Amino acid sequence: MKIGILGTGEVGNLLGTRLIENGHRVMMGGRESNNPKGLDFVKKHSSENASYGTFAEASAFGEIIFNATNGRFALAALKLADTDFAGKIIIDVANPLDFTTTPPTLISEFANTNSIGESIQKQYPEAKVVKTLNTFGMVLGVNPKQLNNGDHSIFMSGNDESAKAKTKGLLAEFGWRIENIIDIGDITGARAMELYLILAVRMKILFGASIFNVKVIKS
Amino acid sequence: MKIGILGTGEVGNLLGTRLIENGHRVMMGGRESNNPKGLDFVKKHSSENASYGTFAEASAFGEIIFNATNGRFALAALKLADTDFAGKIIIDVANPLDFTTTPPTLISEFANTNSIGESIQKQYPEAKVVKTLNTFGMVLGVNPKQLNNGDHSIFMSGNDESAKAKTKGLLAEFGWRIENIIDIGDITGARAMELYLILAVRMKILFGASIFNVKVIKS
Repeated sequence: MKIGILGTGEVGNLLGTRLIENGHRVMMGGRESNNPKGLDFVKKHSSENASYGTFAEASAFGEIIFNATNGRFALAALKLADTDFAGKIIIDVANPLDFTTTPPTLISEFANTNSIGESIQKQYPEAKVVKTLNTFGMVLGVNPKQLNNGDHSIFMSGNDESAKAKTKGLLAEFGWRIENIIDIGDITGARAMELYLILAVRMKILFGASIFNVKVIKS
Repeated sequence: MKIGILGTGEVGNLLGTRLIENGHRVMMGGRESNNPKGLDFVKKHSSENASYGTFAEASAFGEIIFNATNGRFALAALKLADTDFAGKIIIDVANPLDFTTTPPTLISEFANTNSIGESIQKQYPEAKVVKTLNTFGMVLGVNPKQLNNGDHSIFMSGNDESAKAKTKGLLAEFGWRIENIIDIGDITGARAMELYLILAVRMKILFGASIFNVKVIKS
């Protein structure tokens, strides 16, 4: 599958590397066409499946687009792609964390009555936005089997069922068990998944270098 | 131990009943001294360990006070107790959920940069506020062994270590395993535990009548 990844940071790199391992064609996108981190990504993989371009080029390339930009700037970054993303799946993994406060908080415009996922869906009504992969470190997200033999939970929300089904396919390739992918409904579920982060941040402070996640258990 | 429970609803009843089973002396407190639900609680138990009084009487009675009032009115309800709760442990199990919105949200004054737990601590600086037992239905909270043989997680936060230790003791009597009680730090952790509720509500909608909770898994 042709996949665009918007964002050249650690999250974008982890996603891109894993997707290439799984046989996909990945174009990483950044603000400038000569971003050293983007060019390094291509060099590292030395594969025809790895390429780099601007946000606009990566957005045009992908059938599926990952939003792996910094949550604070995600909406503005997507605008640089200069497209309406019509018919495309945008998998939003961004988080609205504000680490300038003590304790960390959520960026107020995305807290409680809004979320990054919903904001992207509103900005691009013809796109199919799926929120997922945001409730743990991405090192675990792209390789869930390193914890509890892969038996822990991942959440998902979005308005389009076919987009969620395709996203589940990519997650299964990462190693997620289908029964552990919890679809909490439409894109307003992104609020729930972003609000949860504050608890995840507290646990991160407590657990230090440990890899962790939650497993939902029900009767 | 002498325990006051502020609130005569289902949560107060579940807590009171379980605490009496565990040998504690419980005074349930309500707004009026002749509240039928409070008098029913006493009648149901027909035990010298069960009593009922006003918020003020229950607050004077207990060494430990459970705040089991409706989150929306918790601060105002506590004021009716007409005490500073100096030196007392207040175990706050209340939640700031607003079900008048679709989807449900958090009451804005308690969301992201505040919480019910912190607000109580601010209102009563000489009290020892512990937030816990708020992240699942109280039917499960007072009897965790009915799910996964009791192997799932409960969070706790508060500024006073001895108050948290005593609270852990009560939780252990309920059936919680000590290793599953996750202390996420000072009372600002109440934010994290209250924000998580929106995710719990989404799961409740999805899972229907199932009893559920999360188990934290770490490497």
